[in-house]
Amino acid sequence: MTPRVIGSAAALLIGNELLSGKVHEANLVELARTLRALGIQLSRAVMVFDDIDVIAQETRSLAQSHDIVFTSGGVGPTHDDVTIEGISKGFGVKAVVDEKLKRLLSDAYGDKLTDGHLRMALKPEGALLMEGSDVKWPTIVYENVWILPGVPEIFRMKLAVVREHLRGQEPFFSRAVFTNLDEATLKPLLDAIVSEHPRVDVGSYPKWFDESYKTKVTFDSRKEDRVEAALNAFVALLPPEAGARVE
Amino acid sequence: MTPRVIGSAAALLIGNELLSGKVHEANLVELARTLRALGIQLSRAVMVFDDIDVIAQETRSLAQSHDIVFTSGGVGPTHDDVTIEGISKGFGVKAVVDEKLKRLLSDAYGDKLTDGHLRMALKPEGALLMEGSDVKWPTIVYENVWILPGVPEIFRMKLAVVREHLRGQEPFFSRAVFTNLDEATLKPLLDAIVSEHPRVDVGSYPKWFDESYKTKVTFDSRKEDRVEAALNAFVALLPPEAGARVE
Repeated sequence: MTPRVIGSAAALLIGNELLSGKVHEANLVELARTLRALGIQLSRAVMVFDDIDVIAQETRSLAQSHDIVFTSGGVGPTHDDVTIEGISKGFGVKAVVDEKLKRLLSDAYGDKLTDGHLRMALKPEGALLMEGSDVKWPTIVYENVWILPGVPEIFRMKLAVVREHLRGQEPFFSRAVFTNLDEATLKPLLDAIVSEHPRVDVGSYPKWFDESYKTKVTFDSRKEDRVEAALNAFVALLPPEAGARVE
Repeated sequence: MTPRVIGSAAALLIGNELLSGKVHEANLVELARTLRALGIQLSRAVMVFDDIDVIAQETRSLAQSHDIVFTSGGVGPTHDDVTIEGISKGFGVKAVVDEKLKRLLSDAYGDKLTDGHLRMALKPEGALLMEGSDVKWPTIVYENVWILPGVPEIFRMKLAVVREHLRGQEPFFSRAVFTNLDEATLKPLLDAIVSEHPRVDVGSYPKWFDESYKTKVTFDSRKEDRVEAALNAFVALLPPEAGARVE
């Protein structure tokens, strides 16, 4: 199967426990790195409560403005798992039991199957089940919305399915220079590079509480030669006391 | 000084490095816990690029729909630090040099002061400087937008100013029960509690890869007696094999 080519992506992180600070959100960085490696740009992430109407509105809005949306959380069996209902409402369809998911749940739980388990067979009506060769449980995809679980260990497993089915337009290339000059000192040099290399994304990140360097400067582009040119031009501008280390 | 009473809060997390996965966002959970302890509900968080127009639009939108907004990131001296310009644009005001901030920067850097440093004296025209008794550097506040830095160590220091100046309407009370039953088994019990205690926020969190428990159930409310009543009712419903542990 040929992976689908994706431009921009968004993430919707769902869970009261994230916004109350009970849990430190852990899935976004994994998703971001996975997409980045595929050449897909994650351009927005939103964190909301387990609330059907909020999820409905946010999913619709993100799905309209991005090629693909990944949700995380709210897909378990209990009353506070309302992601499927929220997404269904956002697209104006019903949440219905998928027969294949129901069969998988019956196989897994046998006699112990409860109505709670069967909530995990719900999908927005018309959704597809995306299979991954290494991942047993199918992933529910409605239009351009991929519905992923909140439990970090399972979320990470599901990223294998993302890697199997999606690709960006072109890969990203990224290099970094670590220096022991502060950002304000580097600013005129950075301004020169940014102005001469407008198609390279130049980032500057101070490290305040680390003796090993003061500022990390990053160079990112879809074109490797552009990254190299900007990096080399920057390093050539640095005085010897910058102690530049290139990665 | 009497702290200001705040209902709902939102966070705007700014930085290309967060959405590319180069950096694991670390400030939101600290902000969430600080606000929670003050009785303030964080109800939405949005993560965006270092882009003036995106920051402008998002700040305006969050500031209209929440009592208070906290931004994190994009306030350093370099070309990719555009939060002040973005917020200014969002409110239709100019980014101007604040004379007090300029004096503080001159005192700190002396002869080494550069134009880069002076970018850190910018504020949206009309913004206030919020002082904290333990925090040397003032915090820029424009209307209901608190502009905080992205460097996690400094962000955490700034939360002292938040604690000093803001209060929620009432504190939150929170309890938790750890059980070794799975969520689907607990579901009918949870449904009964949720229906009998509609004003308590009941959360259910499975732990898939931990031997010490299977499901954590949380009870949250602004009224301590409601939390206790829901918790006790839930524990009374649990069978002995649940191995309930209350925290």
